[in-house]
Amino acid sequence: MKMTIPKSVELVDNELYFLDQTKLPTKIEVEKQNTIEDVWHSIKQLKVRGAPAIGIAGGYGLALSMKDFKNSSTQEFLTLLEKNGNYLDSARPTAVNLRWAIDRIINRAKNSGCSTTKELYGVVLKEAIGIHEEDKLICKQIGGHGQSLIKDGVGVLTHCNAGALAVSEFGTALAPMYVAHKKGIRFRVYADETRPLLQGARLTSFELHHAGIDVTLITDNMAAHIMSQGLIDVIIVGTDRVAANGDIANKIGTLGVAILAKYFNIPLYIACPSSTIDLATKTGKDIVIEERDGSEVYKFAGVLTAPESIKTRNPAFDVTPAELITGIITEKGILKPPFSEALKLF
Amino acid sequence: MKMTIPKSVELVDNELYFLDQTKLPTKIEVEKQNTIEDVWHSIKQLKVRGAPAIGIAGGYGLALSMKDFKNSSTQEFLTLLEKNGNYLDSARPTAVNLRWAIDRIINRAKNSGCSTTKELYGVVLKEAIGIHEEDKLICKQIGGHGQSLIKDGVGVLTHCNAGALAVSEFGTALAPMYVAHKKGIRFRVYADETRPLLQGARLTSFELHHAGIDVTLITDNMAAHIMSQGLIDVIIVGTDRVAANGDIANKIGTLGVAILAKYFNIPLYIACPSSTIDLATKTGKDIVIEERDGSEVYKFAGVLTAPESIKTRNPAFDVTPAELITGIITEKGILKPPFSEALKLF
Repeated sequence: MKMTIPKSVELVDNELYFLDQTKLPTKIEVEKQNTIEDVWHSIKQLKVRGAPAIGIAGGYGLALSMKDFKNSSTQEFLTLLEKNGNYLDSARPTAVNLRWAIDRIINRAKNSGCSTTKELYGVVLKEAIGIHEEDKLICKQIGGHGQSLIKDGVGVLTHCNAGALAVSEFGTALAPMYVAHKKGIRFRVYADETRPLLQGARLTSFELHHAGIDVTLITDNMAAHIMSQGLIDVIIVGTDRVAANGDIANKIGTLGVAILAKYFNIPLYIACPSSTIDLATKTGKDIVIEERDGSEVYKFAGVLTAPESIKTRNPAFDVTPAELITGIITEKGILKPPFSEALKLF
Repeated sequence: MKMTIPKSVELVDNELYFLDQTKLPTKIEVEKQNTIEDVWHSIKQLKVRGAPAIGIAGGYGLALSMKDFKNSSTQEFLTLLEKNGNYLDSARPTAVNLRWAIDRIINRAKNSGCSTTKELYGVVLKEAIGIHEEDKLICKQIGGHGQSLIKDGVGVLTHCNAGALAVSEFGTALAPMYVAHKKGIRFRVYADETRPLLQGARLTSFELHHAGIDVTLITDNMAAHIMSQGLIDVIIVGTDRVAANGDIANKIGTLGVAILAKYFNIPLYIACPSSTIDLATKTGKDIVIEERDGSEVYKFAGVLTAPESIKTRNPAFDVTPAELITGIITEKGILKPPFSEALKLF
């Protein structure tokens, strides 16, 4: 089945629209973002999700928040720009792309030499659009490099969603699949459902299915069995942050997939734009893992699955050590170990 | 919190009661079984579940179905006993313990040499009670042997439900935890929710929580992260079948847990009555894995989590190779590798 799915983030006539990904796959709802608070809540509530998409959304959100301040002084404008940037960043502090996009816009504005706030606003908006356009190009490049890993007849496993819905255009982890599919290569994808928020079921299986790619949905705990049956030849996932030593943080469950991959001797690739590489983070140990509300764990689709007073853990991410990673696919090519050397160039 | 949970199967004043496990954890409902048809439907609809519990329930159901036939001839009694046994067995034809309990009662009656149906009824009821009592004793013995693995301050991980609700008394995998708890040992349990049917959430976390044991519910894909944090010292799970070489079949996801355990160097124990050891099954490769309906994967509580037309896999079990297993806890003690040698004695 082929169907056009709205873009996760779209700027139309200087109005910002997000596809509400929390409602997928049952409802396809596009929400107009009227205020910076709307954008903050959309990011916080995961209506917009996926590292690059959060960066793009945050960039647009920051730019548009300055729309009504064209008559302030340039100093007032820049001060408010920083304040708004910090506010937006607080919606998902683990998301390095969000801070990156915000800082990029702020620095661009600061160094623009503009003498009017009207010009400054133009610079800020142009930078936000630029971030989006670059992301589209980067996704295509990641897809181009990564598709070499997908041969005719292979089985590919992915976890969570690093697809068109998470990013723009082709996504990151799914970009090699989209490119391979366009080239007529025939392959099977297995998508982990990715509890607790089911991004693999709701988003990955949804978008691949609608793109006409052969996708099979499994629960997270089936991955080991599927691998043991020889059905998986390569694993490609996204990442929220790459540390200087090649450790990566990604959606909870990625570490488990990586350990299974090692046991079954299946190559594991991480796909990400090079902006996700954070050399200031020495190793995975320096990455703070966001702990989310327990109700995501003890409820499923609003229905209690355990006593409401049960203790839970709900880490949103886990850290996969570099030793378990075969390669990192960026827009510049596929990095190979030792990553601490390869990453130095970024 | 401590609360007495009704037993999954209970005989009180010659009346049979089942806890309706399909309503857990939101409702605790005990249903009196008035007729053999009630028992059949309860087994069919999984109100009673867990291999040993089904056997116990079927045994009582068969015995009580003969209550009103004390005035028939002994031949009529035995004929009806077989007919009722076949009828009950048809509720879950793949449940080995159900057929086993029914045959045991029929054979006991046939070989009893009783000359009156009143005596025959007594023999049949005594055998049903005996099956239940033996199961309780076995669970206690498994708990007694296994509790030595649970030291003060440790973290224990379990998958699916092999507890009091599945069996009787203490269960199998949970028995060591119940015994350790009674001894005043302080430890933490992490329960995988166990998709797709969530037995870990609905049953394990429910029963341990109500027993006052410190239990934390996690999604299946969090186990690797929790282990990486050093929070798990020992893993105990149940099994549906042990092959002659020590490979075991258990709820889907067990293989993944076992591979993680090996990576993190955490001991993995399998708890089961020795009746689960099947020497006729040479290795795990000989175990046929039941594939269940895909709607369990793409729906929860009636809510779609993916496009309804999505392809899915839904294997109910996976096979964990003997090489990943540290020990097998039975009522006779803890078996150690090489299992092909240790199991020969059974």
